[in-house]
Amino acid sequence: MKTKATVLSPATIANIVCGFDVLGLALESPCDEITLTMHKGPLNITIENLDSFQLPTDPTKNVMGVALQALLDTLEESYTCHIASKKIIMPGSGVGSSAASAAGIVYAANAILENRFTAQELIEFAKKGEQLASGSAHADNIAPCIMGGVTLVHCNDPIDVVSLPYPELFIALIHPQIELRTSDARAVIKSQVPLTKAVRQWAHVAALVAGFTLKDTALIARSLHDEIIEPSRKLLIPHFDQVKSLALASGAIGGGISGSGPSIFMFCTDAASAEKVANKMHMVYDSHHMESKKYVSKISATGVHVTSLI
Amino acid sequence: MKTKATVLSPATIANIVCGFDVLGLALESPCDEITLTMHKGPLNITIENLDSFQLPTDPTKNVMGVALQALLDTLEESYTCHIASKKIIMPGSGVGSSAASAAGIVYAANAILENRFTAQELIEFAKKGEQLASGSAHADNIAPCIMGGVTLVHCNDPIDVVSLPYPELFIALIHPQIELRTSDARAVIKSQVPLTKAVRQWAHVAALVAGFTLKDTALIARSLHDEIIEPSRKLLIPHFDQVKSLALASGAIGGGISGSGPSIFMFCTDAASAEKVANKMHMVYDSHHMESKKYVSKISATGVHVTSLI
Repeated sequence: MKTKATVLSPATIANIVCGFDVLGLALESPCDEITLTMHKGPLNITIENLDSFQLPTDPTKNVMGVALQALLDTLEESYTCHIASKKIIMPGSGVGSSAASAAGIVYAANAILENRFTAQELIEFAKKGEQLASGSAHADNIAPCIMGGVTLVHCNDPIDVVSLPYPELFIALIHPQIELRTSDARAVIKSQVPLTKAVRQWAHVAALVAGFTLKDTALIARSLHDEIIEPSRKLLIPHFDQVKSLALASGAIGGGISGSGPSIFMFCTDAASAEKVANKMHMVYDSHHMESKKYVSKISATGVHVTSLI
Repeated sequence: MKTKATVLSPATIANIVCGFDVLGLALESPCDEITLTMHKGPLNITIENLDSFQLPTDPTKNVMGVALQALLDTLEESYTCHIASKKIIMPGSGVGSSAASAAGIVYAANAILENRFTAQELIEFAKKGEQLASGSAHADNIAPCIMGGVTLVHCNDPIDVVSLPYPELFIALIHPQIELRTSDARAVIKSQVPLTKAVRQWAHVAALVAGFTLKDTALIARSLHDEIIEPSRKLLIPHFDQVKSLALASGAIGGGISGSGPSIFMFCTDAASAEKVANKMHMVYDSHHMESKKYVSKISATGVHVTSLI
């Protein structure tokens, strides 16, 4: 049996503007790197952080620890595990930092265990990590992280995830360097919505799913509107309107808040325009003397993947 | 120039359970038969009803008259028009009776006018008829009637309709012989919905669109749930729960209220099971000593079509 797996676990964009809590996609980069060592022996999980985020090393308080424990709990045999985690994806950035940890660790364990679990089972384990991180066991970041591509979480419990086809798209992402907790971003959302707005939202969601599946980028562009979540959440993100309008004017076909923010993503149809859009968004924060990090990435067809298994 | 067109204009199923106000499909039958005669001359519309529904013959109070007038208003030349309409689709049945009239007449006029209008333009004209019939210019029945197949009305104004691919499906339809006005069926719907229910609804809509587009009947079956409209509207339809549960137990993969009701439709994957399901639904109303009409149909790829043009 192999005993040591290293995975690259990517950032993910949940919601994709109108698909709040149901749609998500995986990026090619940035990725966290997680190495798991598993030997048969007394149940024990140790965690070593190879980054500067100072996340808890107590496995009951760490997303990776909790997700791995959920997987280990289903096994007859017991294992002594060591996790070495080098996070690149900053917690609280809105691109699925906790999901990358939760999905990455169970994916690594599954590689060592010769892929005995299905993707759906891995999602269930990883959800326990999301529960710890945000108080809510959502799969909208985990699903694309584990399955790659664009995913629809049709049902969260029991998990029912659909992989959607999609056209080639490039993503420009800007991460203003403020931390926005998922729980705070959830708190601003109204619990009741007018039916008229809900209908328009599911028209957009339906059109976006059709646009992905039919690989119709013009339809994707027309459907990237959110009248329910964005109007509340954007108030938590400095200069959101300016960033979005400049991105659209610079060639992006649409976009909005990534997950619960503060990162903002924009779809582009080619690499050059994604670079340009990322630069323009970065300039907005520069002009306001705010730190921001920019990324350009394609959608990752694979999501989390093993780079070493020995 | 041709001067006389006859069309068959089909019944349509709006909403398709979870897609309230946005999804619709065309049936192969039943169909209304509409014959339009148009000669250049003083603007005048006369209407002759070849059925027993006693619909108004005043063109300003008749769905066909209003829709045709909207089309004629865009022309430089003026026409003297005569409409002979043989309706099969009973008004108030929930399968797009007014849409069949509105879509049929503008489609017939377009055939005479050598197809000078696009489908989107025809939908705009026909919406004026829907406005007269129900007080709301919705396109969710008109769009599938004119374009055929399964349609998504992404935006109603300006009209933006997407044709969705779909797998072979058979539809069992039961029409209990009570009239349910669209306006009454709209009145029972709550104007505010909890966000949690709205999210589940757009998850279902997204999955249904993916199911159609990917031709995945199992996914279609899993997504045919409506927690927002059906719970209120079914109270207006006698024995709805009994009909639905018997249909599902008899082989239907899913279904619900057709449009605003009272008709109930069920998807089946083959003709024999659709016949069986239609018979079972009919038996429920028989057992309660209520009249009902049953239909079995495939989805019509063409929608309204010309049968004669001279």
